[in-house]
Amino acid sequence: MTNYHVNVKRIEHDIYQLAQIGFNEQDKGIYRQGFSDADMEARKWFSYQLKALDMTASMDGAGNVIGRYGDPDKPAIVVGSHIDSVPAGGIFDGTLGILSALECIRIIKEKKIPLKNAIEIIATSEEEGRFGGMLGAQALTGNLTLEWLEITHDANGELLKDAMARCGLDYKEAMHAKKPKGSMIAFIELHIEQGPVLDLEKKTIGVVEGISGVFKWLVKLIGKADHAGTAPMNMRSDAFMGMADFAHEIGRIIDEEGTDKSRLTIGHVELKPGYAHTIPGEADFTLVGRDMSEDVMKKLAESCDKVLSSIARKHRLKFEYNQMSWLEPKYCSKQIMSCIEQTTKSLDYSYIQMPSGAGHDAQFFTDVIPTGMIFIPSIGGVSHAPDEWSHWEDVEKGANVLLNSILSIDKNYS
Amino acid sequence: MTNYHVNVKRIEHDIYQLAQIGFNEQDKGIYRQGFSDADMEARKWFSYQLKALDMTASMDGAGNVIGRYGDPDKPAIVVGSHIDSVPAGGIFDGTLGILSALECIRIIKEKKIPLKNAIEIIATSEEEGRFGGMLGAQALTGNLTLEWLEITHDANGELLKDAMARCGLDYKEAMHAKKPKGSMIAFIELHIEQGPVLDLEKKTIGVVEGISGVFKWLVKLIGKADHAGTAPMNMRSDAFMGMADFAHEIGRIIDEEGTDKSRLTIGHVELKPGYAHTIPGEADFTLVGRDMSEDVMKKLAESCDKVLSSIARKHRLKFEYNQMSWLEPKYCSKQIMSCIEQTTKSLDYSYIQMPSGAGHDAQFFTDVIPTGMIFIPSIGGVSHAPDEWSHWEDVEKGANVLLNSILSIDKNYS
Repeated sequence: MTNYHVNVKRIEHDIYQLAQIGFNEQDKGIYRQGFSDADMEARKWFSYQLKALDMTASMDGAGNVIGRYGDPDKPAIVVGSHIDSVPAGGIFDGTLGILSALECIRIIKEKKIPLKNAIEIIATSEEEGRFGGMLGAQALTGNLTLEWLEITHDANGELLKDAMARCGLDYKEAMHAKKPKGSMIAFIELHIEQGPVLDLEKKTIGVVEGISGVFKWLVKLIGKADHAGTAPMNMRSDAFMGMADFAHEIGRIIDEEGTDKSRLTIGHVELKPGYAHTIPGEADFTLVGRDMSEDVMKKLAESCDKVLSSIARKHRLKFEYNQMSWLEPKYCSKQIMSCIEQTTKSLDYSYIQMPSGAGHDAQFFTDVIPTGMIFIPSIGGVSHAPDEWSHWEDVEKGANVLLNSILSIDKNYS
Repeated sequence: MTNYHVNVKRIEHDIYQLAQIGFNEQDKGIYRQGFSDADMEARKWFSYQLKALDMTASMDGAGNVIGRYGDPDKPAIVVGSHIDSVPAGGIFDGTLGILSALECIRIIKEKKIPLKNAIEIIATSEEEGRFGGMLGAQALTGNLTLEWLEITHDANGELLKDAMARCGLDYKEAMHAKKPKGSMIAFIELHIEQGPVLDLEKKTIGVVEGISGVFKWLVKLIGKADHAGTAPMNMRSDAFMGMADFAHEIGRIIDEEGTDKSRLTIGHVELKPGYAHTIPGEADFTLVGRDMSEDVMKKLAESCDKVLSSIARKHRLKFEYNQMSWLEPKYCSKQIMSCIEQTTKSLDYSYIQMPSGAGHDAQFFTDVIPTGMIFIPSIGGVSHAPDEWSHWEDVEKGANVLLNSILSIDKNYS
């Protein structure tokens, strides 16, 4: 098997070009939230790049920009990711996958590599969550409803449909962005890891097994607010202490019920009344759990419930929780994973198989077509921040894996 | 020793009368914050009550209302407490001591009980903390400075001196409220416990040993904010988990270094960034410690420092703290305590010796003259809330202990 190689200088050039759109001089962050002016400008810029490669460029009703290469009648290998950003985001998140895909097409054209299938590069819309996230991917895979499109809004209360209208888009058209059956062969996405694993373990490529399932609880422990001076330690119903005792058990819960892919995180806490001299009468906190197995998720949730109940009794607290969401794990295709793994081996890059703890566009494609993801290291695991960074050497290797995986998929599927 | 008895109906009548001033129909709470209109109206009402008993009534430069009974040339036994309230306070806090003192004078007059000394009832000003608290007591005992009077302000930014001016008081005059040496023999205060101990232990009277010393820290644990999905449990620097592990050790710290009078409380917590899906990169929290022994306070503080340092290392966190305050314990006079205890025994009421975990006017008198405090039970330990309550039977017993303790002090001191 011959391996082709990208020209990383051209990817670097494109990444820096795109980074100028929505760049903030103050904090050096990228501000290209979905359906903002900067986001739409980036989509226009990207359409020009597609056309410069003689690809057809179009925007569907959900705001996805689709660049197509090859026979218009053939089904496509879809190479996707997003070009919108979080507020104060970095320059690699999402754009790495899209601009590397552009370079793949350049090489395929330059080397005149024959393909059995078409290739589509899709820069998805609103992946980052201004309106809930992964709007474009949900549109393409038929996961939207009109009702949801009509009522959903951002943190400032702006309706999605109004934001889309400002961009010249009719929200109803998003329902027609669903890809027809048989039009796609596979979905592949190159992305920065956004976590510390590859960097710490000194591996170049992450072959993604799937997207972790995730549940989110809002937990309430209710005790009794008392004067911190007058209430002896043994007469308290201290909601904070209940929460702390639970947090202390998280390690044990994962040891007993979880795997090395399990995560349990308390990210938000509110104590009431929240005064230094008052024993907290209530602790409200979020609990987010993840694993690659839904069975394990269930066991983790069950154990959290049991441990919280028991600690609440011990501290004389009332315990209740609201399950805000439960998303099952999504699995990448074994065959696509194998394509990526073989390609990585033949390029002689180090790699590991790993889950993605973060959500990605790819997760909506797993139910529809064979799907794969490639990670490259994020330095220090930093992402969603201006100092998100990846070595250009890793960008090059990631793009090489993407290019040769696309070619391998093209050979194996038709 | 003959015991005299109060008429609790008259105390009840006065408490309900005073409760009409600053009463809020909505939440049924008392709003008589220091130097508010309601507070000044209450002081006027109280002056009328003093005059109705043929006592001399005056307001000093700090807003304290002083009612004097007996020989104008004799030193006085001071019976004090406050009549200002927290926002949405209860009807017993402070007023119990002042209106019981009024009843004591009534009985002394009616029974024509001869006294060796004068008695002063002092309704102190701004005890509850709108401007820091215990202003009147600090003025009487010479603990104020002009500089402090000039710059101190309430939570809304109103300067103390402006609030005093609105009430017709010149803040500079507060410096002249200090009682001359030799003018006071003793200080005694009857107050609700504001804690659960007497109620839970079914005791009528608390003979207060003193006011716990208290230190307040602002603690910062600084780790690294990471995506809660992408960062494996063992690669995190989770500031929240560091705080929780510390909280879990609080019981052990008190077992090893403290006493049954020790308290360690985390009442306020702020996680940064505080998102459900982000590992907390920083946990800022308050730590308030108390004990009746300053040595024990030091040991508790030292142990907290050590445990926090060690947990910070374990979780890869930076640990720092700011000591916002360190107030040493204040001790009641053994002789006054003994007067109160003997009186309680002779009245055949149950009692315990106990510290006061909350601050009181009395604490500023401990350095100046022999001081004592009497507690009665707060139902459920509730205070600083509209549902603060004490049984009238306990009010009666507390007032009887106050009356007969005053008489006992009068016999023993001159």
